[in-house]
Amino acid sequence: MSSSDIFLGETIGTAILILLGGGVCAAVTLKASKARNAGWLAITFGWGFAVLTAVYTSAPLSGAHLNPAVTFALAIKDNGIEWSDVPTYIGGQMLGAMIGAALVWIAYYGQFHAHLTDKEIVGGPGAQATGTKAVEAQEKGAGPVLGVFSTGPEIRVAWQNVATEVLGTVVLVLAVLTQGLNAAGDGLGILGGLVTALVVVGIGLSLGGPTGYAINPARDLGPRIVHALLPLPNKGGSDWGYAWVPVVGPLLGAAIAAGIYNVAFV
Amino acid sequence: MSSSDIFLGETIGTAILILLGGGVCAAVTLKASKARNAGWLAITFGWGFAVLTAVYTSAPLSGAHLNPAVTFALAIKDNGIEWSDVPTYIGGQMLGAMIGAALVWIAYYGQFHAHLTDKEIVGGPGAQATGTKAVEAQEKGAGPVLGVFSTGPEIRVAWQNVATEVLGTVVLVLAVLTQGLNAAGDGLGILGGLVTALVVVGIGLSLGGPTGYAINPARDLGPRIVHALLPLPNKGGSDWGYAWVPVVGPLLGAAIAAGIYNVAFV
Amino acid sequence: MSSSDIFLGETIGTAILILLGGGVCAAVTLKASKARNAGWLAITFGWGFAVLTAVYTSAPLSGAHLNPAVTFALAIKDNGIEWSDVPTYIGGQMLGAMIGAALVWIAYYGQFHAHLTDKEIVGGPGAQATGTKAVEAQEKGAGPVLGVFSTGPEIRVAWQNVATEVLGTVVLVLAVLTQGLNAAGDGLGILGGLVTALVVVGIGLSLGGPTGYAINPARDLGPRIVHALLPLPNKGGSDWGYAWVPVVGPLLGAAIAAGIYNVAFV
Amino acid sequence: MSSSDIFLGETIGTAILILLGGGVCAAVTLKASKARNAGWLAITFGWGFAVLTAVYTSAPLSGAHLNPAVTFALAIKDNGIEWSDVPTYIGGQMLGAMIGAALVWIAYYGQFHAHLTDKEIVGGPGAQATGTKAVEAQEKGAGPVLGVFSTGPEIRVAWQNVATEVLGTVVLVLAVLTQGLNAAGDGLGILGGLVTALVVVGIGLSLGGPTGYAINPARDLGPRIVHALLPLPNKGGSDWGYAWVPVVGPLLGAAIAAGIYNVAFV
Repeated sequence: MSSSDIFLGETIGTAILILLGGGVCAAVTLKASKARNAGWLAITFGWGFAVLTAVYTSAPLSGAHLNPAVTFALAIKDNGIEWSDVPTYIGGQMLGAMIGAALVWIAYYGQFHAHLTDKEIVGGPGAQATGTKAVEAQEKGAGPVLGVFSTGPEIRVAWQNVATEVLGTVVLVLAVLTQGLNAAGDGLGILGGLVTALVVVGIGLSLGGPTGYAINPARDLGPRIVHALLPLPNKGGSDWGYAWVPVVGPLLGAAIAAGIYNVAFV
Repeated sequence: MSSSDIFLGETIGTAILILLGGGVCAAVTLKASKARNAGWLAITFGWGFAVLTAVYTSAPLSGAHLNPAVTFALAIKDNGIEWSDVPTYIGGQMLGAMIGAALVWIAYYGQFHAHLTDKEIVGGPGAQATGTKAVEAQEKGAGPVLGVFSTGPEIRVAWQNVATEVLGTVVLVLAVLTQGLNAAGDGLGILGGLVTALVVVGIGLSLGGPTGYAINPARDLGPRIVHALLPLPNKGGSDWGYAWVPVVGPLLGAAIAAGIYNVAFV
Repeated sequence: MSSSDIFLGETIGTAILILLGGGVCAAVTLKASKARNAGWLAITFGWGFAVLTAVYTSAPLSGAHLNPAVTFALAIKDNGIEWSDVPTYIGGQMLGAMIGAALVWIAYYGQFHAHLTDKEIVGGPGAQATGTKAVEAQEKGAGPVLGVFSTGPEIRVAWQNVATEVLGTVVLVLAVLTQGLNAAGDGLGILGGLVTALVVVGIGLSLGGPTGYAINPARDLGPRIVHALLPLPNKGGSDWGYAWVPVVGPLLGAAIAAGIYNVAFV
Repeated sequence: MSSSDIFLGETIGTAILILLGGGVCAAVTLKASKARNAGWLAITFGWGFAVLTAVYTSAPLSGAHLNPAVTFALAIKDNGIEWSDVPTYIGGQMLGAMIGAALVWIAYYGQFHAHLTDKEIVGGPGAQATGTKAVEAQEKGAGPVLGVFSTGPEIRVAWQNVATEVLGTVVLVLAVLTQGLNAAGDGLGILGGLVTALVVVGIGLSLGGPTGYAINPARDLGPRIVHALLPLPNKGGSDWGYAWVPVVGPLLGAAIAAGIYNVAFV
């Protein structure tokens, strides 16, 4: 694959991943959406089919990594990709993730505005006043909006949050790496993408409870940057204090999974 | 493929698509249905498996476009279908969509009647009287019934509604166009239909919130015409003011997706 | 295939179909089940995966018809099965359906008993007394129990109930008949069963609302006979007045689908 | 396959199976999880995709039994595995199940603690006092926590509990054994794992209501041992009185399924 195909494929694929993945979070959590309160199963299937769609539309160009953790693991893996291609992959992924997040904003423009300015959600006439109630109300509106872009923990304890992201990513990357051993062909062929997508649904259902399963640094960091840049009213902060967890956890998990693969499966 | 096979295949396939797709909307929203209130996940899976069934039953005859936006994109695509076949495809799709909508009416005949004449839904004895309450109540019964046939926005802002339909259709058409690059064979073989169906579930979950994801002009316009013609009691208007959005948006999205395909993937 | 393999395969397969299909109805509706109130989506996926499991475990022996309507259509179809094999298929299907229904009773024995004797459900101390309230309460307990075995309409209008079963079966049988045209091989190979299963989920979601989608005479009649024979307390009648609908509707639908196939696809 | 590959594959695969399977139970039942109350459908799909992921990551090493009942049946089956390999398989499965259960504890560490020490759940200030209310409250917190590790019956009647586990395992093992007759290749190839996973979703939906469908001795016994060993506050007992049921039931079911296979399918 040429560098330009890699960059283009990862940009298109990750843009679709985040458009659909962020989209399902918007659909389920924002006011004035037909899918409001559709539940966790909708979110996890939504992210899984986002992976499915993104894999099939980018695989012919770049092999569909769509995730710096996957790229990192494939570089560590024996006979994997060239280290010199890694920046091209990750560059495309970051650009694509930011484009995708901006497209979610366009698709749900009215919903974002309605949610962030709704008196009942952000706090009524008194919301401008100082006080605990106003703060709580503002968080009620701003929290789900940040959740459309980035992940965040239910219980904020760094070691556990990192551990959960590590475990989820080990499972994901091990499934990706061993795929080539199951498939007749190249491991990212027509059925591989479907299996990977359903594995991601499974990781979401099983390990998404504590942190919202970033398991992908670009999926979390790219949209968080876009959240910081967009002119959303009452949007609150972008929770930069947590931003390192969904970067470090997945990269650590990728290294562990690649190590297990090199020892056990080669 | 002969013109008669194309027309027959598209008619049969789109009729099944709308019978099952409109059917799941009736199942989940109408009174006296076992599936009532089964939720958004049921609707999106229902539409996805409608696509699955329609693709497999029409692919041997016509290649299973089932959507003017797909036909339009395949005509724009380099080495795609002949422009002279486009009217045959779209003619079959429109006829099939109208047949499918009429079959939904037959399958849920009693449910439509119960829903539209239920005193609690349409407004009790006072519903015949003028007044805001009567209007609201009538909308409560008529709104879901129109929703069985056609899509409508949660927030009526033309540019956003068009944009959301464009984005959903770009994703759909790009997935359809790149399928041939993944599959060993022709891209609409046995597995291709399954992947397309799950992509449609994903688009529904992720981008269906604002407008109900028509992403197909025939899927929206054909049933809307049938809604206008059917002798349903208290059915209200067919919302013709919105009817252009699910036609223009998907066709625009198809053109954009075909452009991306011709530039990036060929 | 030998007659004994056909009979054995259809018996095993249909027993598994009804064990899992009736099982999910018991799981979702009976008292003291972990799956209670899991909803319509659980029921439709449960029946779909029942089809999946039954197809794979019987296909090597009998080709996995599991449904007199499918057998009937395959006999009508040009170059289909021999008419002389039809009684063997249907005999196995009926026997299997009855075995499956009896196994559901064993698997949910305590749940059936708890549900039918629960004072809150069947009517408290006054339930033995005559009166509307006692009748209603008794129906509340007995209705869902009959629903574990057989289908029943939400609105009892014969022509619509037959029409809905006809439409569901036309879709099912058309999907089964055209499968061979999509698959490289025999149409009931490894992927065919998965597609058929998901088509059945789709029919359930989209056309199950009015009658509970029997779309299979053996699936309804076999368990209804078992319901009449089992020593369940307070079980009420087996609704024999409706029993002809899920036999006639599916057979009529099968004939229509086979006719469409012979005209359009051959 | 070498003994070390078998042991390693079963350990890795069963660890992933229980990490994801126990994980979805924790996600849906514990306090401070984003997936809380996501319902039975989430649990059954979670376990199914746990099987999917575990099969693909262990099949290249050990053939992905992941279940002593499957191993037992494959040894009974004509031309199955060597009996001398059985202890290696089961040893890896038990070790993997214990590792997986410990990893669930790490991934949901804060959630376990919050759930078991929540005043509202375990009983407020008076919980330390003796009395029925304190006992009930304590069970409310401890019951779901044990349910993350091991199965338990809704109605505790040994013969029915065993029967339900037998029936579920017969279906599972028959599906696994007949897979090789459907697939072109070895029966645990790329598509076989997907079918098995969906069969497990189906068994959960249809037969999981009474006992929680262990259908696998290692899945239940391994995590139960870990539950007994972990330093969880207020965790209560590990219900050893029930522990024999999910061991005996599945092994009995495996023997019956292998017998049916040897008689009917060979």
